[in-house]
Amino acid sequence: MNDMSDDPQALDQIAAQRAQTHQTRRATVPAMEERLYTPHPVLDHGFVRVVDYMGDDSAIVQAARVSYGAGTKKARNDEGLIRYLMRHWHSTPFEMCELKLHVKLPVFVARQWIRHRTANVNEYSARYSILDREFYIPDPAHLAAQSTANNQGRGEVLHGDEAARVLEILKADSTRAYDNYEAMLSQDGQQGLARELARMNLPANIYTQWYWKVDLHNLFHFLRLRADAHAQYEIRAYADAICEMVRDWVPAAYAAFEDYRLNSVQISGKGLNALRRMLAGEEMDAEKAGMSAGEWREFEGILEK
Amino acid sequence: MNDMSDDPQALDQIAAQRAQTHQTRRATVPAMEERLYTPHPVLDHGFVRVVDYMGDDSAIVQAARVSYGAGTKKARNDEGLIRYLMRHWHSTPFEMCELKLHVKLPVFVARQWIRHRTANVNEYSARYSILDREFYIPDPAHLAAQSTANNQGRGEVLHGDEAARVLEILKADSTRAYDNYEAMLSQDGQQGLARELARMNLPANIYTQWYWKVDLHNLFHFLRLRADAHAQYEIRAYADAICEMVRDWVPAAYAAFEDYRLNSVQISGKGLNALRRMLAGEEMDAEKAGMSAGEWREFEGILEK
Amino acid sequence: MNDMSDDPQALDQIAAQRAQTHQTRRATVPAMEERLYTPHPVLDHGFVRVVDYMGDDSAIVQAARVSYGAGTKKARNDEGLIRYLMRHWHSTPFEMCELKLHVKLPVFVARQWIRHRTANVNEYSARYSILDREFYIPDPAHLAAQSTANNQGRGEVLHGDEAARVLEILKADSTRAYDNYEAMLSQDGQQGLARELARMNLPANIYTQWYWKVDLHNLFHFLRLRADAHAQYEIRAYADAICEMVRDWVPAAYAAFEDYRLNSVQISGKGLNALRRMLAGEEMDAEKAGMSAGEWREFEGILEK
Amino acid sequence: MNDMSDDPQALDQIAAQRAQTHQTRRATVPAMEERLYTPHPVLDHGFVRVVDYMGDDSAIVQAARVSYGAGTKKARNDEGLIRYLMRHWHSTPFEMCELKLHVKLPVFVARQWIRHRTANVNEYSARYSILDREFYIPDPAHLAAQSTANNQGRGEVLHGDEAARVLEILKADSTRAYDNYEAMLSQDGQQGLARELARMNLPANIYTQWYWKVDLHNLFHFLRLRADAHAQYEIRAYADAICEMVRDWVPAAYAAFEDYRLNSVQISGKGLNALRRMLAGEEMDAEKAGMSAGEWREFEGILEK
Repeated sequence: MNDMSDDPQALDQIAAQRAQTHQTRRATVPAMEERLYTPHPVLDHGFVRVVDYMGDDSAIVQAARVSYGAGTKKARNDEGLIRYLMRHWHSTPFEMCELKLHVKLPVFVARQWIRHRTANVNEYSARYSILDREFYIPDPAHLAAQSTANNQGRGEVLHGDEAARVLEILKADSTRAYDNYEAMLSQDGQQGLARELARMNLPANIYTQWYWKVDLHNLFHFLRLRADAHAQYEIRAYADAICEMVRDWVPAAYAAFEDYRLNSVQISGKGLNALRRMLAGEEMDAEKAGMSAGEWREFEGILEK
Repeated sequence: MNDMSDDPQALDQIAAQRAQTHQTRRATVPAMEERLYTPHPVLDHGFVRVVDYMGDDSAIVQAARVSYGAGTKKARNDEGLIRYLMRHWHSTPFEMCELKLHVKLPVFVARQWIRHRTANVNEYSARYSILDREFYIPDPAHLAAQSTANNQGRGEVLHGDEAARVLEILKADSTRAYDNYEAMLSQDGQQGLARELARMNLPANIYTQWYWKVDLHNLFHFLRLRADAHAQYEIRAYADAICEMVRDWVPAAYAAFEDYRLNSVQISGKGLNALRRMLAGEEMDAEKAGMSAGEWREFEGILEK
Repeated sequence: MNDMSDDPQALDQIAAQRAQTHQTRRATVPAMEERLYTPHPVLDHGFVRVVDYMGDDSAIVQAARVSYGAGTKKARNDEGLIRYLMRHWHSTPFEMCELKLHVKLPVFVARQWIRHRTANVNEYSARYSILDREFYIPDPAHLAAQSTANNQGRGEVLHGDEAARVLEILKADSTRAYDNYEAMLSQDGQQGLARELARMNLPANIYTQWYWKVDLHNLFHFLRLRADAHAQYEIRAYADAICEMVRDWVPAAYAAFEDYRLNSVQISGKGLNALRRMLAGEEMDAEKAGMSAGEWREFEGILEK
Repeated sequence: MNDMSDDPQALDQIAAQRAQTHQTRRATVPAMEERLYTPHPVLDHGFVRVVDYMGDDSAIVQAARVSYGAGTKKARNDEGLIRYLMRHWHSTPFEMCELKLHVKLPVFVARQWIRHRTANVNEYSARYSILDREFYIPDPAHLAAQSTANNQGRGEVLHGDEAARVLEILKADSTRAYDNYEAMLSQDGQQGLARELARMNLPANIYTQWYWKVDLHNLFHFLRLRADAHAQYEIRAYADAICEMVRDWVPAAYAAFEDYRLNSVQISGKGLNALRRMLAGEEMDAEKAGMSAGEWREFEGILEK
């Protein structure tokens, strides 16, 4: 359950923001208006909420054409043009839409996320403020063993006793770390350690928050990497939630993204040669294709999966 | 006079966009709603028009605090915080506002403008389309001689005969270049040269257009350099027009920008030492300050101007 | 023929730079040392020359592993890892190599080039200095008609008379524009127009120069788009020249780039479904694949070309 | 004491890298050659080491002039031009130098550092690898209380008993967190938790490592903010170490940076008016200057400090 329900002041502020409406001449998307400000729960204490958005599908077309009006005359033409732009890597028109999110997320997820540099970020400051006692404790269904096939990945879900021990450790260490964080900060009978120092005792599963603003092209790039099956489950949970928002926001652009990026595959020059020979009826293997065993396995996986 | 008035289709599209209003829960600025879509004339055929905007003064505060609500409780506190953020170079909260403009501008201005890389741009394509017959011909009041003091600058306004000759050349060469552009493109009795080649005959005073989207922090950086007295007059004309828009959009942030950036000065370490000695009553000169003659002249200029 | 040979001072400076050698502990690539400073001619008066480089194939591996030493133990392992990084879009290790070029190029090429924003640029200033009388006049073999199939492209080479007329126009207009540029600048019996204004009379085929510095990941992105068959011939001539340099510099990374980017194809989700059915022996068409006619044509082109 | 001395394999690799020298025609800086690869200790287990560099003071001048040769004819002229470029915010020539560092640093420092987005980073992956048992434990001299004047800052050094308790907590919690990290990862009689999950138990004072590559302009921006008295001590320790490296690398540029950025002050428009009146002999106060009490206090601090 999401922590929002435990914070009456936050709920009041969100309700107040949702209650206000204004007249605007700007491009407006009713489905996004419906989403505005309401937190969408992710993981055990996290959320994503839309704080603002700029543009819609028509704004992409309008920018691509550098036109005075909005989009083309027919929605169908807009869709075709958007698919064309996506297929041919014309990325700048997608940069003309912008999304602003408020995200609450564990620090280890934040550390992956921030690697995407083409975005604007304001993070809650643990130099200036005191962090809340909220830690990510995985659901047992997501408590996975190290993959034996892949250094960077998960294997099976942990068995009962081992899972219980892990959860016990994570909970106990989080609690102790936070108790000691408070003890070091306390000004009761002592000076109290500086916040910027005390925070170093907190583990990477503590929650932080930020405002994150990004254009649609760079958001698609983020989603392509983070909504992917190889991404760590915890960041994928956020990416999946954002995918739903983007689908509501710019349905034509999202459909093109899904087809040409998310569900697409990249076939190498060697792969393309092999493919043409296969379509001509030839039996191929790694050697004939000039690929390593691992690469051939990946290639076959793509064609058969 | 701005060319908009000569393009009835563009005027219709603008009127159609302005006529549409929607309900929104997003931060909305009435003065910007008033500006939306209407071209603001710049130079002889250029314009800037606001196509979209995201955020307001409160959005800066909201991001700085990573808060659930909008801004602080009192407008006065918002203003104080915004001034604090500007004074102490906390730039990320200003990145949380975004502006989208449609700009028509001479190519030589576009070439200066594009040097600011942290923005999104879609330019009208002269590979794909045929450019209009519109050229910047300076007003005689802005027809300046080369500066004799500064390699990169203007001196006095040109005298009558010389000014007339220059205007004659600019007009005649523009006309001939465009006539020949059309002659090369023509498919009347010939194949017609590719657009992407024919455009190479067009001079740098032809007008182009683009959509330009930028966050407020990077916009302030652009304005600081381009609304400055050392900027070329022609780009300054655009920067000045945008300053008026930003003043309407985020008045508190703009006031802070004006005081701490546009009207501010940077005093070097050597300058600061000299200044303290001057305030203590000492007579200073270049040698005592450890400055070159040129630097001391600039320093004195700052203090006395 | 390249203009370098006409500028004895430039030739002297280049010879002087090439004559100096130093001892270094940095990663060093003999083939790049051989290239350093010497202009590689492009088009009729342009060039690209390597001014500096940082890193080599091993530096990519070293950064990917965050290791103390250089690369892995065996060159063969380095190659395999580089191919893996490229295949799986791990782009940051490629950012650890950097290339600095000095480029002389027509202004209309510069305007396309600068759209790649993730690079460092210093361009020769026509506000400060006077441009040289050098214009790009296409070789007749590259004087192409507008494509009839594609708004953004070239068709057949122009026939004799039309080609002659075009060349005549381009030469005459360039000459006249430059003569008038000089006439306006002249301080002989008049004040002389400011350089920043006079330049507006110069057409887009005049040559400019810049220093351009970029990391290998972003350079690959540039080359992928600009060494592509759909890029305008004139910028492709530069991209092709740079490809040769990069092949010398980081041979393993370049080979991976060639296979996984330059010669690769992106197959959409719909395309992948169609492909699997084709490999299973099914006859497919646009309708079965859920593609538009144009998209199906592109898809068939990929598989058969 | 720095951990390098405890890792014989790392020492061997560093010695091997330092032992190799090559001939190069590139700009070379002897003082940087001397520094190459050797770790410079920072904090208790961290370091910064130069892995590569591109350019020198002359390369800045060469790019500013877009010239064929290196720098101007006289070193003195180079210095004057570099000071001019810095004073007038011509930042692009400084982007033509590039520095690559290998840094070992606590995670909470890394989290501040990464906010500077205009750089290239490869961090050691705790999804893929197991982190070492190394934690930052502050020296008692840097164990400071929370500032009472400033939410974001440090006050006095902690007294004896309190300091001892804090150090005890930090050491005990680090040890326990790492013991449990190992226990969860262990495959001895159990499956072993995935690395990407186990890492979430580790506190923010654990050390990580990365390769960080940045151009000189953006490095100066980083140093200006992080070598500043208001920066947290721990990141300042790294910034100070890097300042020493940059001073060796590009002495003229560093001197200009020191004078015009590090030791400089920004005087607002209001401040400049006040200053001119003070120089004319007038007694000023906050009200006359149109400043808030806090702003006036900062202003007086600048002039008197």
